[in-house]
This record gives sequence, structure tokens and C-alpha cells, in this order.
Amino acid sequence: MLQIWPLRGIPEVTAQSDLVALIADAAGDTLADGDILVVTSKIVSKAEGRMIAADDREDAITAETVRVVASRTSESGHTTRIVENKLGIVAAAAGVDASNTPQGTVLLLPVDPDASAREIATGLRARLGVRVGVIVSDTLGRAWREGQTDAAIGAAGVHVFEDLRGATDAEGRPLVVTMPCVADELAAATDLVKGKATRLPVAVVRGRADLVGDLDLPGARSIVRDPERDMFHRGADEAYADGFAAGAASVTGR
Amino acid sequence: MLQIWPLRGIPEVTAQSDLVALIADAAGDTLADGDILVVTSKIVSKAEGRMIAADDREDAITAETVRVVASRTSESGHTTRIVENKLGIVAAAAGVDASNTPQGTVLLLPVDPDASAREIATGLRARLGVRVGVIVSDTLGRAWREGQTDAAIGAAGVHVFEDLRGATDAEGRPLVVTMPCVADELAAATDLVKGKATRLPVAVVRGRADLVGDLDLPGARSIVRDPERDMFHRGADEAYADGFAAGAASVTGR
Repeated sequence: MLQIWPLRGIPEVTAQSDLVALIADAAGDTLADGDILVVTSKIVSKAEGRMIAADDREDAITAETVRVVASRTSESGHTTRIVENKLGIVAAAAGVDASNTPQGTVLLLPVDPDASAREIATGLRARLGVRVGVIVSDTLGRAWREGQTDAAIGAAGVHVFEDLRGATDAEGRPLVVTMPCVADELAAATDLVKGKATRLPVAVVRGRADLVGDLDLPGARSIVRDPERDMFHRGADEAYADGFAAGAASVTGR
Repeated sequence: MLQIWPLRGIPEVTAQSDLVALIADAAGDTLADGDILVVTSKIVSKAEGRMIAADDREDAITAETVRVVASRTSESGHTTRIVENKLGIVAAAAGVDASNTPQGTVLLLPVDPDASAREIATGLRARLGVRVGVIVSDTLGRAWREGQTDAAIGAAGVHVFEDLRGATDAEGRPLVVTMPCVADELAAATDLVKGKATRLPVAVVRGRADLVGDLDLPGARSIVRDPERDMFHRGADEAYADGFAAGAASVTGR
């Protein structure tokens, strides 16, 4: 059985906050070996001072954008930009966040969420004496499906994939699905208890102790697909336009 | 707190199986109002006789393909086809499944997973006298991220989205993320207890009774994005090739 619950009593996080202390205080002695904590990236960003003044959120998005993947403007004039950000993550608005942050500011994602996860996991293991894993989560949209789900953008001490390559099914046949991304599934599961409009930025998952491991396991960066291997590294309209220009040039020689 | 556990004792499902009976028997009297059952699409397919002989799985994929979205052949000669299938779902191999089905056969997805979910939910509500929701789940890959996660391809009696449009955050500002796809998050969460190589095709989620509703709520079909609204309705290479041909033709007039 899996049990998932939010940690209560975590106060408003600021750039002076010691996240390990806040989480440890809220957890008390309720954590056990094999527990996995999923920490919303928002509070990691706040604790790391990643709040910037942004009267124009769009400028912040542009600054965080490494590569525009796709862009579309609705009839109402709203532009959605799907970009690859400095973490290699493809998401709308480069992950720049205008919710749950004071008016006139926006939150950038943590500079290195895997390192942040490792710092929190190291600190909690030392302070509480329990072997826990830590995931840093963010809310992401996705291709082909409406709505958003939470996913892992940082991880430490947790296997981010369950590696079933070479495993067989109940009838001895090789499994076709071989790489469940359990880190993303853990993040999605905790979104069900954290809510969006409430101050419950940390949740615990108990019941998959087999997924907790050493702190030097690969982080969530390993989930990001290399653009060279990605069939959707560019939006359809953008790729079409690129092709069109190349096609015309190929004929005219320009 | 969320509790998630697999139902044990569900035997091998065949085309003669009464899924409602099998699930009800396995559940006994352990279910309560507000519980959400997540049923792996495999057993729904088996119960609906969606097993076909397929010495060549590729033929089955072609038959289920409405539209090829993208395709890539690796150096080893393995071709991955991302296609839109008859359910409108964009996924590798059209959802045709060669695992956990007897040798020489493949499983097609259910014809109408929302209807299947509704049938199961209706039957369980009547038989067990508890107001439960039902999700039919499948394992899907995704753009930009390695690995697979479970998602909802059918749903009944469950809100598939948490509609937060117009809601505000803790500081009274409008939320930016407004459509958490809770059905996909529920499916992902249960994958953590079901496993891939074990016979645990049904799991229960308890703790989000607020997501359970009437049986005529929109199903999982509402999660599928209309290709016209999808910036990734076509793979980058395919769109580029389309554009190239059009660009060349625009100059030559052919």
C-alpha cells in the first residue's frame, strides 16, 4: 500500500529560509527509511532567492529561453511559448512562475534542481537519521493532452526510472514498456494531496522504499530527452516553415 | 492522506470474463464511497475480446493508425511510430500491446474506454452499493521526456480535470496553472503499486472523494487535445519535409 500525505506547518518560505530546517521541523519524527519527499519547486526557488522583479513576465521568459520549440497566438492575442529552458526542460513559459509569489515578482526555476534535491536529501538524512529520497516537482503541460500534471525536475536518492529492460511479463515474454518514469509518477501522485491554492508544498510518499537509494543516483536531468533523439524538438508549424524556406531556397539557389 | 493499494486475487482475464464480478469479488466489502478504481486497459481489452492473432504486430499497428504523427528508425533498424489511433490518442505503436498476452497474439486497446469505464462503474456501484469512480489506464510515452508513465484513457464518475480557472492562489492572485489533469495523475499514482510484470491490474485510490461524481461526467476522451490546437500534431522531421516540398513547389509552380 502507498500512503501519501502533505507535511503541514511549513511557513511562508523566503530567501532567508533554511529549507532543510523547515521541512525537518514540519516532519518531526514521522518520517521513516524509504520515504520519498516531493518538494514543490516554488519553495526551492524562493529559498534560493530566485524571485525577480518582473513587471513583464514575458521578459523573464525570454531570458530563460535557450531555444523556442513552438509558439502560437490565440485569437484573443494570448501567446503561448513552448521553449527549452536552461535546464533542458521543454515547457510553456520556460517554467517562469507568476503564481504564489508577491505582486510584481515572478519566480524562476531553481538553477540546478538536482543539486537542490541533493542538498535537501543530504540535510534531512543527517538531521533526521532516516534514509529518504527527495524529488523537486514542477507543473508541466504536455503535448497531445490537455491540462497539466506534476513531474520531477530534480531528484536525489531516488531511482527516477524503474529499469525493466530485459525483464519479462507474467508469461515470460520480454516487456515492451521498459522504463516507467517513477519520479514523474511520484510527483503526479503527490499533486493529488498538495493542491494548487494551498500552502502544502511538501508531501511524503511511503510504500516504495525500493526506489530509495544512494545520493549519487542519476537525477531528474536524466529524464530530459536529448533534442537530437526527440521527434518533437520543434513545433509542427515552425518545422514546416523551416522546411518551406529551405525548399524554396533549394530551387532558387538562394 | 491518500491511500493507494492493488486489489489482489483477480484471476487471468479472458473474453468470457465478467470484469465487474471479478473486481467486485476481489474488492469484497473493502470499498467505500469516494474510492477511485484504476483499471489497466489490458484486462478491459481481454474481457472485450480485443486479442487478435498478430504474427506481425506491425500490421496491427497500421490497422489501428488513423494518422502517422512521427516516425523514426534507429541505427539498429527498429522503427518507432508515433501515431494517432482510433481513440484520438497519440502514442507509440497505436497502443497495440504485445506484453502480458499469449504468444502469437497482441492486444488492441478497448474500442471505447470511456464506455468501458462507465460499464464497470455502473456495475460496481450497483453491486457493491458504493459510489466509486473508475479510470481505465494505459502506459504512454511522451514528448521531450524519456520513459513512460500511466495515463487515463477512459474514465467514468470521476472529474478528469480539476477546473481551477478563475481560482486564486494564497495571495489572491489568479492561478496560472488552471487545469490539473487529475485523471492522469491518478493513473500515474496507481502504476506505483501495480507493477508491470505482476498480475495486479486494478488499484484503488482513497482520499480524493471530491473527485468522484455522476456517471455522466466527461470521460477521458476530453483529455485528448484536438490536433488543430496541438502545436505538435506532426513530428518535426515530417513537418519539415512537408514544408520543403511545398516550398520547392511554390517556386517551380508544381
